Amino acid sequence: MEKVEGQNPQQEEDQVVNPWEVSAKDGGKIDYDKLIDKFGCQRLDQSFVDRVQRLTSRPPHVFLRRGVFFAHRDFNDILDAYERGQKFYLYTGRGPSSEALHLGHLIPFMFTKYLQDAFKVPLVIQLTDDEKCMWKNLSVEESQRLARENAKDIIACGFDISKTFIFSDFDYVGGAFYKNMVKVAKCVTYNKVVGIFGFTGEDHIGKVSFPPVQAVPSFPSSFPHLFSGKDDLRCLIPCAIDQDPYFRMTRDVAPRIGYHKPALIESLFFPALQGETGKMSASDPNSAIYVTDSAKDIKYKVNKHAFTGGQETIEKHRQYGANLEVDIPIKYLNFFLEDDAELEHIKKEYGAGRMLTGEVKKRLIEVLTEIVERHRRARAAVTDEMVDAFMAVRPLPNMFD
Amino acid sequence: MEKVEGQNPQQEEDQVVNPWEVSAKDGGKIDYDKLIDKFGCQRLDQSFVDRVQRLTSRPPHVFLRRGVFFAHRDFNDILDAYERGQKFYLYTGRGPSSEALHLGHLIPFMFTKYLQDAFKVPLVIQLTDDEKCMWKNLSVEESQRLARENAKDIIACGFDISKTFIFSDFDYVGGAFYKNMVKVAKCVTYNKVVGIFGFTGEDHIGKVSFPPVQAVPSFPSSFPHLFSGKDDLRCLIPCAIDQDPYFRMTRDVAPRIGYHKPALIESLFFPALQGETGKMSASDPNSAIYVTDSAKDIKYKVNKHAFTGGQETIEKHRQYGANLEVDIPIKYLNFFLEDDAELEHIKKEYGAGRMLTGEVKKRLIEVLTEIVERHRRARAAVTDEMVDAFMAVRPLPNMFD
Repeated sequence: MEKVEGQNPQQEEDQVVNPWEVSAKDGGKIDYDKLIDKFGCQRLDQSFVDRVQRLTSRPPHVFLRRGVFFAHRDFNDILDAYERGQKFYLYTGRGPSSEALHLGHLIPFMFTKYLQDAFKVPLVIQLTDDEKCMWKNLSVEESQRLARENAKDIIACGFDISKTFIFSDFDYVGGAFYKNMVKVAKCVTYNKVVGIFGFTGEDHIGKVSFPPVQAVPSFPSSFPHLFSGKDDLRCLIPCAIDQDPYFRMTRDVAPRIGYHKPALIESLFFPALQGETGKMSASDPNSAIYVTDSAKDIKYKVNKHAFTGGQETIEKHRQYGANLEVDIPIKYLNFFLEDDAELEHIKKEYGAGRMLTGEVKKRLIEVLTEIVERHRRARAAVTDEMVDAFMAVRPLPNMFD
Repeated sequence: MEKVEGQNPQQEEDQVVNPWEVSAKDGGKIDYDKLIDKFGCQRLDQSFVDRVQRLTSRPPHVFLRRGVFFAHRDFNDILDAYERGQKFYLYTGRGPSSEALHLGHLIPFMFTKYLQDAFKVPLVIQLTDDEKCMWKNLSVEESQRLARENAKDIIACGFDISKTFIFSDFDYVGGAFYKNMVKVAKCVTYNKVVGIFGFTGEDHIGKVSFPPVQAVPSFPSSFPHLFSGKDDLRCLIPCAIDQDPYFRMTRDVAPRIGYHKPALIESLFFPALQGETGKMSASDPNSAIYVTDSAKDIKYKVNKHAFTGGQETIEKHRQYGANLEVDIPIKYLNFFLEDDAELEHIKKEYGAGRMLTGEVKKRLIEVLTEIVERHRRARAAVTDEMVDAFMAVRPLPNMFD
């Protein structure tokens, strides 16, 4: 049986992971094994990587083969059905709380783009401007503006417009989507959301009302313009594991209202430059590489702020080598350096003390600068008309081709 | 200052009046003076009746001149503005939980029709099919079907299609309406809705989410197709006083989000045939006259079930007269017998024992039969096309004429 709720998680647990807070015990590292155990999801092991490779006839994404996406719920069911010739759809999203995205924000989108291409399936992307309006106390208009700005960054990841529907809640809530919200809300008590999300009596009722909004894109009937007559279509949600609480709730409710449980494939958190103690902080611009950073910014941030596992002196470094377990440049290269052989070489040489921190950082700066430059070029090419086109409520006749 | 909340009203109070429960102390009568005091609304005194008559140049509705609508909030502001040439709009509604309406259900609609005609103002009517789906555990489809059936009864009350927009929440929630829902929800804590509505932790979050849905038709910006550019338009809500909690909450929030507080004009409850101890019970068909009742049904129900203030024997009745304070036929005639002189005559003769219960019931049966027959004929003339027309999202260019 899946765990659906636990009373007062803050009091019981030594690490807190929910959609609004990620903090490890005593400022240490997130214990992902413990998280998997607490949430009740499964490890994504090598057999899945191999199976995805075989089913899609293409190399698995670096995030998959290096365990960035490390946990899942019912991903096997999605693959079983796919093997029988039944397609699925992808659902991911973003809360548009800031103008500039950092690299951590891009990870689910980069991976989702790979899944869309590899499996040739449609995708819905929810921009929760209502959530951010409520949690961050932004005005409706500012939340909507940020949603459109963020949509440009998302589109810049390369999604296929013939298979992708992007929507903002303020635009799209209503009709079949609202009916599903009501169906979900009927099945979840206040005590249950308190157990799952840790709300208190002083929280406003907008927060209490929101979980169904994030739940219902998991159900194909929320998108009649896309999936009319396809109520049986399964949904796969790529996301960071802090979003798991929403989908535990969704999976608990789904069978009670006649729908499939959505499947999930969940990622680690992208570490802050200062070290792996949680997610990056939007309030500290030096804790992350932003997609708006210049080459100079990137160079400065990596050289100045990236936490290193190298030794204090060159002599000691040559003698003991770097501690790769805590080294942020190595962790970032693990996410973004595509070449497996080169990464192995760097890890071996750096770990043995033959390569210095400065050399590793130099390579990381190159890799990040290339990614950020590529993103900037792609984003500059995204016009308002393209945003309108991706966000138009329209059928996608070729979405499974 | 208005009272907005009171913790645990059930424990403190000897009578309970909220949108889902109306019960007096020990099965007695509702104490409306106490209710006015508890809710913090005002008595609607004779000066209002006179002023409405003067401003509208027509006789005040029987429900107004006989105190059926007995309480208000800021109705004076509406009349002040009207006197300065500023119009307002009306908002009322219904939770479509049953197919057949009883006469009590028609009272706010009959009165609203009068207000629309007298003041020449537009009207929005909300059918809360989402609420009933959540509270009564109806399916979405059944709630929507009942909403359309109830819309026919409402249209049969004679509303002017050029001034009236009827909507169901399942159809209409979204866009500007949803944005206002989010704005309201941000301003109301869970503790506050517990104080106002008495929700518990075991209630589902659909209930907690609902109050903003009933709140936002109070704001003209929720209807851009009607009131675009008229954000300053005031709203007047005719309703039974059990709906007051929703609008106490709404009035508390309104100035914080830049809107006028809606004004209210509130009615007594229509008593059950068995006596004035609260609202009628949908589970007991003999407690009310339904608009679907035949002349024979009405005759049977009044003769068999109407609680009488007449004496046990004719001799005693001739000697002591009827107790008009508890007599249901008199109370019903007070609602529905238009002729003031005839009503006074009946009360005088019956109270003095010169008129017998049977005679009063006979007159009531005539009056009710005529109302129900007239309603039945009007409802039979309401086509599905007319329902579609009233519910179409459309501008109403002549709504103030």
